[in-house]
Amino acid sequence: MNDTFLKACRGEDVPYTPVWIMRQAGRYLPEYQAVRSGIDFLTLCKTPELAAKVTLQPVDILGVDAAILFSDILIPVEAMGMRLEFSDKKGPVLTEPIRTRSGVDRLVIPDTEDAMPFVIDTIRILRRELENKVPLIGFSGAPFTLTTYMIEGGSSKSFVHTKKMMFQHPGLFSMLMDRITTTVVSYLSAQINAGAQAVQLFDTWAGALTPEDYKGFVMPHVKRAISELKKEGVPVIYFVNECAGLLDEVKKCGADVIGIDWRIDIEKAIKRLGKKVAVQGNLDPCALFLPRERMEDRVKDILLKGESAKGHIFNLGHGILPETPVESAIAMVEAVHKYGGKQ
Amino acid sequence: MNDTFLKACRGEDVPYTPVWIMRQAGRYLPEYQAVRSGIDFLTLCKTPELAAKVTLQPVDILGVDAAILFSDILIPVEAMGMRLEFSDKKGPVLTEPIRTRSGVDRLVIPDTEDAMPFVIDTIRILRRELENKVPLIGFSGAPFTLTTYMIEGGSSKSFVHTKKMMFQHPGLFSMLMDRITTTVVSYLSAQINAGAQAVQLFDTWAGALTPEDYKGFVMPHVKRAISELKKEGVPVIYFVNECAGLLDEVKKCGADVIGIDWRIDIEKAIKRLGKKVAVQGNLDPCALFLPRERMEDRVKDILLKGESAKGHIFNLGHGILPETPVESAIAMVEAVHKYGGKQ
Repeated sequence: MNDTFLKACRGEDVPYTPVWIMRQAGRYLPEYQAVRSGIDFLTLCKTPELAAKVTLQPVDILGVDAAILFSDILIPVEAMGMRLEFSDKKGPVLTEPIRTRSGVDRLVIPDTEDAMPFVIDTIRILRRELENKVPLIGFSGAPFTLTTYMIEGGSSKSFVHTKKMMFQHPGLFSMLMDRITTTVVSYLSAQINAGAQAVQLFDTWAGALTPEDYKGFVMPHVKRAISELKKEGVPVIYFVNECAGLLDEVKKCGADVIGIDWRIDIEKAIKRLGKKVAVQGNLDPCALFLPRERMEDRVKDILLKGESAKGHIFNLGHGILPETPVESAIAMVEAVHKYGGKQ
Repeated sequence: MNDTFLKACRGEDVPYTPVWIMRQAGRYLPEYQAVRSGIDFLTLCKTPELAAKVTLQPVDILGVDAAILFSDILIPVEAMGMRLEFSDKKGPVLTEPIRTRSGVDRLVIPDTEDAMPFVIDTIRILRRELENKVPLIGFSGAPFTLTTYMIEGGSSKSFVHTKKMMFQHPGLFSMLMDRITTTVVSYLSAQINAGAQAVQLFDTWAGALTPEDYKGFVMPHVKRAISELKKEGVPVIYFVNECAGLLDEVKKCGADVIGIDWRIDIEKAIKRLGKKVAVQGNLDPCALFLPRERMEDRVKDILLKGESAKGHIFNLGHGILPETPVESAIAMVEAVHKYGGKQ
């Protein structure tokens, strides 16, 4: 088995730097488009054979060192009792955003086997079909990021409704975060029990907060989620987008691996995060539009700087973009494998 | 004359901390809405009497220590020869984005008096009507931010077209940045000659870049703009949104004042920027939704931390939001004046 990824998560010696790509299964791959052309996005997420199929595509096409479950971060939110729709223009829409106590009260803590059996089935198929070729990563949105979708009803620019609840009804906000955190822990534990060999929490929108609000309103829930998940015995990755102003707090989260975006130099990030944690990232997704040689120079630079961390997993600093040429993603993975090696 | 703002820009002793608000003239004010209801946005920008009128509104209503020219950052872009339209849904749209050499070649360096006389007229009216009550700030988009609009054709999430040109045609990108920088310098110099007593460059989208790309592709142009503007003898403010990963570069820009957003602790920002520059910011615009007492606590915290800078001008970390209650903006200004004082 190629367990380079798992070893790097734990900070153990590895023969080379492992790599995977956030959103590695997706729109930039013609093979994915072929599957997606016959089915809507949410149905694809909920059809285990097809979700497993698109999960496996990048493993073969790119040669990455880990697979990640194909799903949507709002799946557990829907299971909590909200109505989820996808619009091609607006992306995900939760039709009745939560802004009151009664809205919070109506949310259930779903049992994953009952409410999201397709996720469990997808993971079981994947573990069988992967035959231990590479490890399988499970994932969930982090509590704050899921909360923003639930309060805003979709994506947002300035998160006015989220911050209004946070600032004007901090008790209610905390109750909502707590309920979501419990769901996230239960959901990821079920993924681990079904076979996920590591889990990642995506905190896509944490960077919208001041460091002080992040510390007070978000970090306690992140810490609880991670400490409960660590009892399951697999590595926990916490990805924080727009992390540059938050790292002094993020370092206290307890995760095995911190995922960082591209807006900060990885060497400086590692210095601030310290020696107790592995780091994942941080190539700008747009760097895959560079001519090959210059893209490789950036890969080499990040690999070199990554050596100062307890462990380094190469990745983009955010999801791969739909416009990305597949050959560039392949070339990136090749470059990581060629140049990234702890001596 | 209340010259507290200008003194703070230069790092001179001030009796209290001056304050103004980015986008202080705008949609959150009923008095602005009343003017705007009879006229479209672009016509308002181009009608000196009305642009001056809305510029003055917040000076009286909020009691801020500076006025800032009411205009749109894309005005000089339109004057360079691009067609600008405003859509209520999409915001500003440049109908023929620039992605080729011939597109760059078609751009002119406009003479402000000829191509944007309404800006000059607005400033002259303002200086007369302000009667030296508070100083008047002129402004322009910074070169990179204007360039992203010109290449993308409007707002963007991932700036794919901008970075594609930057990465695949760096010579062309640099030529475009150079032309825009020349325009920005000429435009702001004309504003200063007409009476603007300080100028601010808004780099709203600089935070989308890696620190390395910011250093290589953006900073040389920012430095040139600032060094040429400083010959005009008024303070230059450089506002960088999402600055947390970029400050070690930003500090080299040569501006009198660095404006920072709210995603970084101002105390840490000041430490990284050093003692040679004044700092402007950095309250989260959403903090104006806090109950008054807790909003004031945040104001006090920023004021206290701001004392370690060479000079501190209080402001939000980005533009005031349309949903903001006016009384909260007034309370913020009052709190700054009450609690902010260098001994």
